[in-house]
Formats: sequence, C-alpha cells, structure tokens
Amino acid sequence: MMKLSRFLNFNRNAVGKPTDVRDGSALHALTFQASISTGGKSSIQDRVFAPYSVFKGKAALSVEPVLPTFSKFGSGNLRVDRRGSMMLTFLPAIGERKYDYEKRQKFALSATEVGSLISTGPKDSCEFFHDPSMLSSNAGQVRKNLSIKPHADGSGYFVSLSVVNNILKTTERFTVPVTTAEFTVLKTACSFALPHIMGWDRLTTPLPGTLASKLSKVDPQMPDLEWDK
Amino acid sequence: MMKLSRFLNFNRNAVGKPTDVRDGSALHALTFQASISTGGKSSIQDRVFAPYSVFKGKAALSVEPVLPTFSKFGSGNLRVDRRGSMMLTFLPAIGERKYDYEKRQKFALSATEVGSLISTGPKDSCEFFHDPSMLSSNAGQVRKNLSIKPHADGSGYFVSLSVVNNILKTTERFTVPVTTAEFTVLKTACSFALPHIMGWDRLTTPLPGTLASKLSKVDPQMPDLEWDK
Amino acid sequence: MMKLSRFLNFNRNAVGKPTDVRDGSALHALTFQASISTGGKSSIQDRVFAPYSVFKGKAALSVEPVLPTFSKFGSGNLRVDRRGSMMLTFLPAIGERKYDYEKRQKFALSATEVGSLISTGPKDSCEFFHDPSMLSSNAGQVRKNLSIKPHADGSGYFVSLSVVNNILKTTERFTVPVTTAEFTVLKTACSFALPHIMGWDRLTTPLPGTLASKLSKVDPQMPDLEWDK
Amino acid sequence: MMKLSRFLNFNRNAVGKPTDVRDGSALHALTFQASISTGGKSSIQDRVFAPYSVFKGKAALSVEPVLPTFSKFGSGNLRVDRRGSMMLTFLPAIGERKYDYEKRQKFALSATEVGSLISTGPKDSCEFFHDPSMLSSNAGQVRKNLSIKPHADGSGYFVSLSVVNNILKTTERFTVPVTTAEFTVLKTACSFALPHIMGWDRLTTPLPGTLASKLSKVDPQMPDLEWDK
Repeated sequence: MMKLSRFLNFNRNAVGKPTDVRDGSALHALTFQASISTGGKSSIQDRVFAPYSVFKGKAALSVEPVLPTFSKFGSGNLRVDRRGSMMLTFLPAIGERKYDYEKRQKFALSATEVGSLISTGPKDSCEFFHDPSMLSSNAGQVRKNLSIKPHADGSGYFVSLSVVNNILKTTERFTVPVTTAEFTVLKTACSFALPHIMGWDRLTTPLPGTLASKLSKVDPQMPDLEWDK
Repeated sequence: MMKLSRFLNFNRNAVGKPTDVRDGSALHALTFQASISTGGKSSIQDRVFAPYSVFKGKAALSVEPVLPTFSKFGSGNLRVDRRGSMMLTFLPAIGERKYDYEKRQKFALSATEVGSLISTGPKDSCEFFHDPSMLSSNAGQVRKNLSIKPHADGSGYFVSLSVVNNILKTTERFTVPVTTAEFTVLKTACSFALPHIMGWDRLTTPLPGTLASKLSKVDPQMPDLEWDK
Repeated sequence: MMKLSRFLNFNRNAVGKPTDVRDGSALHALTFQASISTGGKSSIQDRVFAPYSVFKGKAALSVEPVLPTFSKFGSGNLRVDRRGSMMLTFLPAIGERKYDYEKRQKFALSATEVGSLISTGPKDSCEFFHDPSMLSSNAGQVRKNLSIKPHADGSGYFVSLSVVNNILKTTERFTVPVTTAEFTVLKTACSFALPHIMGWDRLTTPLPGTLASKLSKVDPQMPDLEWDK
Repeated sequence: MMKLSRFLNFNRNAVGKPTDVRDGSALHALTFQASISTGGKSSIQDRVFAPYSVFKGKAALSVEPVLPTFSKFGSGNLRVDRRGSMMLTFLPAIGERKYDYEKRQKFALSATEVGSLISTGPKDSCEFFHDPSMLSSNAGQVRKNLSIKPHADGSGYFVSLSVVNNILKTTERFTVPVTTAEFTVLKTACSFALPHIMGWDRLTTPLPGTLASKLSKVDPQMPDLEWDK
C-alpha cells in the first residue's frame, strides 16, 4: 500500500486507456457517485471518489459503497428509492501493475449479502449469484457468481467473480487473493458502511420545538406504539 | 434481496390494501417517524422510511429504530422524554409475496433488550415478554412474547412473536426464519442504532468560546468530578 | 426496562429528594453537562441528559460519557484541555425503587480504563483504583475501588464501588448485579463513546479550497510525513 | 492515565525542550493537522490535537489519525489526493517521565496495515517495513521496521520501532510495552478511524431535490449498475 500511495501521485491523464496503477486517475475512474455531507445539504459538485482497492498479479478489486437514493412522497416524507449496496469492481491485469479498465466487471452486494461477508469467519466461504437481466426477457442469459473462499493456511481469501454471458457467448473470470489484513479492512469498512447503505444514517433525534417533535408528542408511549395500528 | 430490490420499484399505490412486496409503498407503510439531521435542525418534512425487512413464506419481519424524544427543562436543558427502541413489525403472509398489513403486530425492543439481541451467539436463544397495558386496568389482559431460537444446524434463527389477547380472545403467532447473514445485518445495524436510541448521538464536544465550554472551564478536573456532589 | 420506561413518564418534581425511579427527573439529576452538535456550534442551552441506568435491589448504576473540553492555543489551534471519561454514578437503595441521590458516589473511567472494560470477557474481571486527592495534601486519604467480577454462572457481572474516606472516617460500598444484556449495552455504548471521549470525533477531512487543505498541500507525502521532523 | 490526566494540566510552555509529560504541551506537540467539522466547512483555525499516548519507562508512543486530503477534478468532483493513515510517534525517555521530543520517530500505518493491527489476536504478532525514500535515489538507505509482539503471558504487546539509517549511519530502536487495555483502545479507536482515513466518512446520501439526487435518478437500477460500463 505504501508503494501504491506513492504511485498515486503521478500523472492523472490516462482515464479510459489501459490502466496503470501508477496513474492515480485509474483508481478514481473505478468509482461511483456519492455526495459529501455539508450540514445536510448536498450538491452535484460533491462527488467523492474514495474506493478501497487491492491490486494483485492477475486482477484488481476495488470496493466502495453506493448509497441509497430517497424520493419524496406524501407531505414531504422521504423513502428509500433505490437501495444502497457495496459495489465490487474487478479489473483484469494486462501487464505489470497495468489493469484493463474497459474489461471491468461489477458486482453489487445488497445489505444482506454484506451481512454475509462480515460474518465470514477465517475458515468460512460464501457465494452469491446475480442475474442482472432478472425479470427481463433476457432473464438467465447472464449469470454472475461471486465467491469468497479461505486460503488453506487461513492467511486470507480468494475473491472470485465469474460472468457467464450466453448472449455474447463470453465467460470471464477474475480471482483476487485477499490477505487477512485486507479482508479485515473490507469487513470493518463494510460494517461502517452497512447502516449508510440501509439509509439509517439519515435517522436522527428530533429536537424539541420542531414540528417533528411536536407531532411525536402526540405519539403514544412505547408500549402503546407496540399496540398502535 | 436482489429480487426484492427489483420488485420495490413497481407501482406504489397500494398502501392499506393487502400488501404485495412488489409494491414498494408496502415497505414504507411499515415504518415510523424519524427526522433527518440537517445541521442540527429538523422539520416535519423530514420523515425517513428506511426499514430493514425480511420477507419469508409465512410472515415478514421489518425492523427500524424509533429514536428517543427530548423535552426541555430548566434553562434550556434537554432530557430524554420517551426512550428510543428498535421496533419489530410482523406481517402475516396471505399469498405468494403478499402480506396483510392490517394484521401487523409490533414489538419494541428497549436498549437492554437490544443488548440481549446483539450478544446472542450462534447457539443462544433469547425471549422477551411485554404487557402493553401494564399498569393500566387492562394489565395482564394482553401478553406479547418475542423469542429468538437458533436453527438446529446453526444456519440462523427463528424469530417468533406471539400475541395473546384475553380481551379480544385472540391469539396470533408469527414465525420468521432469519438466516445468519440477515441476523448479522440486524446485529450490526442494532449496534449502530443503540447509541442513537439511547440519545448518545446527541452528545458532542463543546467548542472553546461557547458558553458551554466556558461553564465547563469552571468544572473541577476529572478526579474532582468524581468527588463532586 | 419497559416498566421503567413507563415509570419515567410520571411526575417530575422530586429532584434532590430521595429518589423514586418512578420520578423521571431522578434519572436526569444523575447526569452531566454535554452539548448538542448543531452544525458545529454549541450553546449553554444544549445540555443533554441521556444516562444509561440499571436499577437493582440494593443500588442503582448510571453511566454516561463526559466529553473532553478543548482550549485554543497558538493561531486558533485546539487541544484537549480536560480528558473525557465514562462517568459511573452509584446510588444506594432506600426502599422499593427508591434511591438516595444525596448519597451518590462517582467513578470516572479514563479512555484506557474503558479499553479494559470493553475487553472484559465473560469470565474476566477487572479492578480500578482512584485517589481523588492525588498529588494534594490529602493524597491517600480517600481510596476508590471499582471492581467488575463475573457471576459464577456467566450470566453477568457484579459491578462494585467501594469508597474509603480516612478523613470522614467513612466506608461506602455499592454492588450492582449487571446482566449480560446490560453489560453488552455498556460495552457497545462505551465502544461508541470511546472515540468521543478521546476527542477523535472532532477530526474530519479538510475540503479542497479551504486554508487547511491548502496548507496540507505543502505537507510532505506520507513516507515523508514519517520522515518529517 | 488518571495520574497523567492530572499532570496534563500543569505548565504549557516547554514545547521543543526535552519533554516532561507533566507538561501538557508536549503531548500536543506530538500531533498533526486535522480539521474540525463545522457543518462541512473547515478552516485553518481548526487544528485539533487529540493524540492517544502511552508513556512507559523507556519510551512513549503517541497515536493519532492523519486524514486524507482531497483534490478537485472535472466539474467539481473530489478524489483522495493523499491517503490518510494512523500516525505512530515514538519518543525516547531521558529521565523519569521525561521524553526527548527532538529524537522522535514516526511510522504511518496505511489502511491495510491498520486492518492488520485490528485483526491481531492476543497471541498474534505483526510486522511492517517502510522505506521513506522509496523510489528516490536514496531508496534502501533508510529502513523502518515496526513490530507488534504479544507478551508471553498474554497480558499485552511489545510495540517496537527500529530505524536504520545508512546515510547517517544511525540505528534507533524504541520499545513500548502496551497493556491489553491500552491495545483495546488502539484497536477500537483505529476501527473508528479506519473509514475516516479511507475518506468514507465523506460519503452520505444525496437528498431529493438536489442536483446530485436528480442525476442519480438517471442512474440505472442496481443490477444495471452491475452491468453498466
């Protein structure tokens, strides 16, 4: 990581071209929209690119939360519109410290799949199957399979993604060996991110004197809340 | 979950009617008032609906924090008025992916009961009893019993709620099988939510130059604080 | 807890008098100054009272963070002035659900002592000694001893405080049995509070365009940071 | 710690001079720039000094997060410019409770190295090697080696830093015995700090009505996000 953190300060004009990790922009190109908290307000200028990336010999894995989006309904209420996820992005290596950004593949872990990842013990493995075309006419034509398998010596995991595309008649497979330390970062960061992708970071206590708290005053007490219909 | 997250983007006009999880609004109808933090201010327009829901064959379970409310006293002090809780809502299934919102039952976990839940190991079980009419003339007429029991194979838990109502002469029972992954989400999200339902997310460090910090200047040092009466 | 949370909504005018837990204000009287975050500003009107309390037969234990205070120095820098702590307050019982607020005793856990508490396993015990008059002429005249000892059956802990005062020729001892669930709340809430009593919740990333980030631009890279003197 | 927290309120004018821990400023002199969150804005006046320090007989260890810096690119996007780290600072003792600030040495743990630290069990050890001059003409001239080794009796760890400088022909070695309680503080505080040094604390949910959320509306659904190129 120290080495990379040095590389990441080199030229930044290679986005799109085959990716050299010495090029900081490559990392950023792996990332997705989010928005900075500025006291509750957010603006389009506030996209933050802060992926956690693991670069290995045959492929690179980059992980970053995708936050939920909310939509208004009723008198200014908000509800989760699109669920958040942890987005995994795989890039194949095409040379020493060079990765092909054009050939990237993504896999979005839902909250429950994140729960599965963070409950994975040193000897456990887990596996997820997604069908991006699910419910469409192409259902079943593309199958994505993410597997996390422990090293025999307990020194880490193999994180593998296979993408079988019956339309394009292609099969792609990425395998990134992840050390225990790197997996601990993933688990810790995912545990931190989980309430955020669930949208629970949005919940906070109403202050007295606000309409919200005035309304809550007329709410029944907790046992009644249980009873309320 | 992927499947559901797709369903959740279908029509939204079925609140109140028997609930089809393909109807996003059903989920939201399961939820409670909260308020977004907007730099410390909150308004009635800031209700957020972000439950974590598990849909199974015979029933659905939806979990969401209910935050405490504060009231002012003395010279602008705040104290917890109603304690926060983790609200569990159960809905019976009435068909494939259809749940009866009218027949929902709720169970509010206190901070200590949340502590019990998050300390539940793979082979542990726990059980809670509530009497919504406690201390009223109806005391003992209604008994709610929530139990969490591990699967024999350690693959998860059965979360069951029974509600015995001697007034209405009814007994209702809900059982939702919860996988280890889903339970990990509950534990992680409840650990995140615990300080919030306790109101501790409200505590933060006074900055120098503010009255609060000026007052704290005259506070005795920590050992004296111990000694202070 | 449910029972208490009901009690806590009864009359609120008994502060100072022998404490009946049915009196909500009693709880609040157990607490200390803190200040609400309102987008970085805080005011004297922002005291929050949100202790976590355990009421048992012979005594009650109430726990709450005491946040650090900062002082300015140099060109507007801030440093921790008084360290934060977790404040434990014990009250003796003087009747059914009645506790003597006048006879309370306090014990302030430092960050490291909190580390000791949250690393206490089901069969571990820990013990702390404080001398509130340390370094003064009264050094050694008062000894406080907090001990946490596991139940034989692993169902929880005994939390005991003894205060030996050679000046007043008094010895006080409080013992509160704490269940595993209650101790889990303490551990979880203390883990949440630890970075706050350390003042680390004050650290956040400077945004580009601010003086802070402009300065950080001239900071050496990380390896140089290591090297910097 | 109690003792120290008393000491830390004595005279504050000894920065630079050989360090007496009774001098509060010494601690602060160990620290690095950060910035307070004031509703999203930060200024040069907002440096916070809140290290966690362990003072032992032969050396002192002080730990504090160094947050990442961001730079703008494209239409107001932000990306991590310099990675954050956990900065460890060692000072040799030069007398009872006196430490030589001039002879301090630093070691910056990357996110992955923090992952290694927080996954270190009671009997595990870990070791890191840094070359501050890496990739420069001086590469290999200076070698830093941080090792964390458990006590034989499991009562804590030895944290050691050795710095071999072939240019100055010097070798320095610091060893600080760290108790389980102190190491638990480090692990807990590092787990808290990890998402911050990764820059993930910057990610939050866009609110409806903001440009950010309008854009995200045109984002594909999650499965498509997986599919998106």
